Amino acid sequence: MKRTLVMLTIVFLSISSVRTNPENESARSAMQQSIISPIGRVTKEKGKTHIVLEKRYQPGLLGLDGFSHIYVYWWFDRNDTPKKRAVLQVHPRGNPANPLTGVFATRSPCRPNLIGMTLCKIISVKENVIEIERIDAFADTPVLDIKPYIPRSDTVSNATVPKWLKKK
Amino acid sequence: MKRTLVMLTIVFLSISSVRTNPENESARSAMQQSIISPIGRVTKEKGKTHIVLEKRYQPGLLGLDGFSHIYVYWWFDRNDTPKKRAVLQVHPRGNPANPLTGVFATRSPCRPNLIGMTLCKIISVKENVIEIERIDAFADTPVLDIKPYIPRSDTVSNATVPKWLKKK
Repeated sequence: MKRTLVMLTIVFLSISSVRTNPENESARSAMQQSIISPIGRVTKEKGKTHIVLEKRYQPGLLGLDGFSHIYVYWWFDRNDTPKKRAVLQVHPRGNPANPLTGVFATRSPCRPNLIGMTLCKIISVKENVIEIERIDAFADTPVLDIKPYIPRSDTVSNATVPKWLKKK
Repeated sequence: MKRTLVMLTIVFLSISSVRTNPENESARSAMQQSIISPIGRVTKEKGKTHIVLEKRYQPGLLGLDGFSHIYVYWWFDRNDTPKKRAVLQVHPRGNPANPLTGVFATRSPCRPNLIGMTLCKIISVKENVIEIERIDAFADTPVLDIKPYIPRSDTVSNATVPKWLKKK
């Protein structure tokens, strides 16, 4: 009788474990991952470059015209494949003469999270559209976020970079 | 008979529409959204601050020790709710004396995509761990990306900011 009880307990615990594991997994992955959605797109037409936000995000631009420069955060959407997101080392600028370098020490468009960032000069802000001087992102690139450039916190005067970056 | 045929056609088209719409929605959201997963976490212990990458991302740090400063991109994970991601205007620094401002003109932790960014001074890089001087993110904050700070492209000398940012 005692042995049967132990067996039943083991069976019960195994079943509980099987049943609760998927829930734990789901709770864990909710903390581990999140969703990003574009707030707008880059457009390039007739020599002009714009960030066109979805109309519903226009209220988020209030007061942006008080700044001269913004960081534009965008998504390397052409590289959004498991293979390219798994790249961890590259020869910077695709030049084999540059030393093999970890992607976190480069601005490579291949990286685990495909965040691109460019410091851009604002030309104008009108409704849901920001005209900028230029950006190193293709037309139609999804834009994720915009932040103002604040020299006091975004600049350091004594920064150093490795040798490969000093070459032209 | 003709009337019945028209009715049947309308019913058929309605059903097709109901059946195909979800597929279109899904295809559209696949292009519109993407997944981000942390590459590591912020730790703060005994007065020291570290970015601890998952071990599998360690190769991505090769050569980072050639730089003095990095941008750390992190996720405002405490605000990852539909309600907080829908906030589009705030009083900067939570101070009602500052003018109501669009989140894209502030560094508010409430924004549609919860990307935070801090320019950090590197103390050391050892295996999968970067010691940094400080960061304005809580301990255990998910880290999304690391990019080197490159003064030539990441600095402008003539940037302007609005009045509320000039106050102490």
